[in-house]
Amino acid sequence: MAKRTVYCGLVSKAELEQTVTLKGWVQKRRDLGGVIFIDLRDREGIVQVVFNPELSKDAWEIADKCRSEYVIEVTGKVILREAAAINPKMKTGEFEVIASEITVLNKAKTPPFAIEDDQEISDEIRLKNRSLDLRRPKMTQNIIMRHKTTQAIRHYLDEKGFLDIETPYLGKSTPEGARDYLVPSRVHPGHFYALPQSPQLFKQLLMNAGFDRYYQIARCFRDEDLRGDRQPEFTQVDMEMSFLTVEEIQEITEGMIAKVMQEVKGIEVTLPFPRMTYDEAMNRYGSDKPDTRFAMELVDLGDVVKDVDFKVFQMALTSGGVVKALNAKGAASKYSRKDMDNYAHYVGQFGAKGLAWVKVEEDGLKGPIAKFLTEKQAEIIAATDAEVGDLIMFGADSFNVVTAALGAVRNKMAKELGLIDESKFNFLWITDWPQFEYSEEEGRYVSAHHPFTLPKKEDIQYLATDPTKVHAEAYDIVLNGYELGGGSLRIHERELQEKMFAALGFGRVEMQEQFGFLLDALDYGFPPLGGIALGLDRFVMLLAGEDNIREVIAFPKNGKAADPMTQAPSTVSPLQLFELNIEVTATEED
Amino acid sequence: MAKRTVYCGLVSKAELEQTVTLKGWVQKRRDLGGVIFIDLRDREGIVQVVFNPELSKDAWEIADKCRSEYVIEVTGKVILREAAAINPKMKTGEFEVIASEITVLNKAKTPPFAIEDDQEISDEIRLKNRSLDLRRPKMTQNIIMRHKTTQAIRHYLDEKGFLDIETPYLGKSTPEGARDYLVPSRVHPGHFYALPQSPQLFKQLLMNAGFDRYYQIARCFRDEDLRGDRQPEFTQVDMEMSFLTVEEIQEITEGMIAKVMQEVKGIEVTLPFPRMTYDEAMNRYGSDKPDTRFAMELVDLGDVVKDVDFKVFQMALTSGGVVKALNAKGAASKYSRKDMDNYAHYVGQFGAKGLAWVKVEEDGLKGPIAKFLTEKQAEIIAATDAEVGDLIMFGADSFNVVTAALGAVRNKMAKELGLIDESKFNFLWITDWPQFEYSEEEGRYVSAHHPFTLPKKEDIQYLATDPTKVHAEAYDIVLNGYELGGGSLRIHERELQEKMFAALGFGRVEMQEQFGFLLDALDYGFPPLGGIALGLDRFVMLLAGEDNIREVIAFPKNGKAADPMTQAPSTVSPLQLFELNIEVTATEED
Repeated sequence: MAKRTVYCGLVSKAELEQTVTLKGWVQKRRDLGGVIFIDLRDREGIVQVVFNPELSKDAWEIADKCRSEYVIEVTGKVILREAAAINPKMKTGEFEVIASEITVLNKAKTPPFAIEDDQEISDEIRLKNRSLDLRRPKMTQNIIMRHKTTQAIRHYLDEKGFLDIETPYLGKSTPEGARDYLVPSRVHPGHFYALPQSPQLFKQLLMNAGFDRYYQIARCFRDEDLRGDRQPEFTQVDMEMSFLTVEEIQEITEGMIAKVMQEVKGIEVTLPFPRMTYDEAMNRYGSDKPDTRFAMELVDLGDVVKDVDFKVFQMALTSGGVVKALNAKGAASKYSRKDMDNYAHYVGQFGAKGLAWVKVEEDGLKGPIAKFLTEKQAEIIAATDAEVGDLIMFGADSFNVVTAALGAVRNKMAKELGLIDESKFNFLWITDWPQFEYSEEEGRYVSAHHPFTLPKKEDIQYLATDPTKVHAEAYDIVLNGYELGGGSLRIHERELQEKMFAALGFGRVEMQEQFGFLLDALDYGFPPLGGIALGLDRFVMLLAGEDNIREVIAFPKNGKAADPMTQAPSTVSPLQLFELNIEVTATEED
Repeated sequence: MAKRTVYCGLVSKAELEQTVTLKGWVQKRRDLGGVIFIDLRDREGIVQVVFNPELSKDAWEIADKCRSEYVIEVTGKVILREAAAINPKMKTGEFEVIASEITVLNKAKTPPFAIEDDQEISDEIRLKNRSLDLRRPKMTQNIIMRHKTTQAIRHYLDEKGFLDIETPYLGKSTPEGARDYLVPSRVHPGHFYALPQSPQLFKQLLMNAGFDRYYQIARCFRDEDLRGDRQPEFTQVDMEMSFLTVEEIQEITEGMIAKVMQEVKGIEVTLPFPRMTYDEAMNRYGSDKPDTRFAMELVDLGDVVKDVDFKVFQMALTSGGVVKALNAKGAASKYSRKDMDNYAHYVGQFGAKGLAWVKVEEDGLKGPIAKFLTEKQAEIIAATDAEVGDLIMFGADSFNVVTAALGAVRNKMAKELGLIDESKFNFLWITDWPQFEYSEEEGRYVSAHHPFTLPKKEDIQYLATDPTKVHAEAYDIVLNGYELGGGSLRIHERELQEKMFAALGFGRVEMQEQFGFLLDALDYGFPPLGGIALGLDRFVMLLAGEDNIREVIAFPKNGKAADPMTQAPSTVSPLQLFELNIEVTATEED
């Protein structure tokens, strides 16, 4: 083998009239009047290689036998193409390589799908042949974009004095949070490690150790049922800092994101990002991760309709609920009565009993419930800033149901109406989260973030008496309607941490058993601290304009948490189970 | 909280006469004639803070109550110490901070051990209180050194066009290699993931995908019994490249190591590193990872002693074995007959039946076997380059036993004799490894590296007939007698890969079942490829001058693969086991 002198996709003016050696895959071979043209592909792109039998009969003969995806090495001279042959769509489209030598490094059978973008290939086939799927230019570029993203993050954090410190993957199972993946211990029969859902406690302990600024691009694991952008394992940009305020942590995070946007997308974002409290976000957008690329905000109509004689509104208001409206500008003509019936059905999944609506016409509000609103027509139009042609929807129920329903309608309808500028990257901080949420399933309050989150000072008094009043020093960062990450200040005092565990229903023994090592560490000079974790997969997905994180993970699992390529998970030998002191109680057929 | 302006350990001329704000831990508090001196510590080091009651009574009163490991914030002015008070042992020893303000950010109980180096603390206590253990300056610096090492590696590889790509941690269990850690699947009853022993196959597939240059600082897992520098999980600098020769891969690796040595240790290493074949290393050093910081090489005496009438030598030679000698220069007076008896016992663990020896005196060789050697005395002295005062030891047995025994004696005696220059970093490539080694346990040949290692072209003919003759395109990198890493070219052709599996005793069905996805991928234009993996824990251990990798891992496991801090592994709830469709057949008492 000769040394490669340049990547195919990077052949440029610098190589003009030079002899180059290329290595790559045959994208396409054409024979035009006895001259063979090979599009040669590597990770950087494609360049055209020309085999002229008059120049080298030997090379021509070998080239003639090359098929798609053969791996070849080519040596030749870079020349400018004739004007007519220039391909402005290709990065290397001005050039071609006149080959004098060729070596076939490996042959290829016809692959199960063409190595091109925009192929209709089933997910199973793609995952089964993942290394071929990754050859497709878009996939190659997605993985390269992921590399560039982590690189920009690392460079930024290194500069800011963060230390990259590894934490264990073989950890302990804890009752809080999602379901753990377990790893049976051979040395300790009947005992199990758990794969970490995040390095949360370890990073807090690293602050206790005095490392001051920690980061890790860490794999995390959750054994949950999979949805569109969930995977059994995912990657988190994990950061923790001592002695900083919420604002300082946000500023560092923003700087990191700005660096990524600049280096990966060439976009200069405006800093600081907007901040909004959780309560405001829920009120205005019906979402704790609002997509602010479009307006269409929720409007509270409680005051306006409080005397309207419409049972649905009255019931909502008298039982402590709300009435809110959503105005889809100019959408009246785009949605039929049937479409709106479908929407009424759609909001059912959020607990709403229906979706009342009116259209704004020249002579006032029209639609099924218009008759109830006649007297308040002008006020409703004013409150929702409505004009003729608008479609106004109403939600009347508990705050949670109304915001969930209208928030979802807002997102869905905005997509349908084309209100979203896909080129925008709207970052937003959501702050002042509730400390707890009530779990119907467990019949108790659970942590909205995690049990180590610092409550706001003024709310600590309510910890034992009225948990719903307690807000946390917690902040999420939202991008285009996706939760990109979240963080908080942490509790650094034992007494408060014990109160927090108590509020979550932990008894003394239980908290010592599960988190004794943290409580003990809090005794010996734990510094004030806080941090954040960003979902790397999701961030890169959004940067790449994809809608599933599988598209930015080299070897993801399918919707059933399996890898169709390696056939993981698989059955194992009886000896393996014997050594682990476990028995299988049910087995799925292969 | 005010903003920190500088780390304690970095207070320098730049801050002289400036007001600074520091945050850190109280290392020591002294009251000298009514003035309080606090040594304040953070990750960068210690600075002296002075509280003078005449300057600020309030601050003085708070400082007076501070105890060791209190977390405080201090604002004050940096001044030069008086000449007599300068401490040349401290980085900040010329300066002190005259405090005007102090805030106690957290109190501390007396820690279970003093936060100082060179404490005698049991490993269990250290691991149980790991965040306090990590506060000790040496441990803090070890972890910072690890960060600097990975940072240097990443910068170098980024520059060389390597892409950092993540591979799965939930993989498939394979029969080759060490014991896997298993993870039961909830979705697929009776099926298990395995944690990776290395990303070997994934990185090969990434080359097939065309990424050309891959790296990952990857966690790897082996469920083996633990020894000094083994942990259940360890970290590997994992690299793979397409289209390169062994020499090119070695050159890239050397450049990376040179960069680490320069940035982390300030040492310029000479490139290229020496290269030695496996056979030469075994012959000369009795080791496949020779420590070349000292000579004391093995000398073959087969020819010299072939007619000597000493049964042990004769038996070894006539049964196809060897006779080798080791000359410990000037060691004759340092080892008594009893010491040598102990050595004879010591080599028993390598299968040797004893360790014959003679001392070189003015009037010739002396010692238990000297009488057999009289006639060949001059030749032996010449061959071993011996002088009066030397101690010559002999090994006579099979090649494997003699090299193992004398190689171990060489290392042990060199330490005792102080022959090793601990300041040296001797890197060395060991090349041309045997492809197979015979496993007595399994009664078949197994891969010396792994089944994807490319055999040397000229040896492929022996694959089916005489596996012992097959050498591999494999290379290890050795540092000071430790295997730092290893790599090889890989097989990129299906036919050869199938032959290799066959030589390892795999049937057709078995190879398809276990490695079908690799064999299939080899059909579609797999590029020539190779790579290497370095043990990061061991590398940092050697850089830090430690002798156990636990000293360079933030949260390691103990000798029983457990974490005394979090109590991992632990028992889990019956519900967890039920959901995973497994039952425990034996349980260790907690």
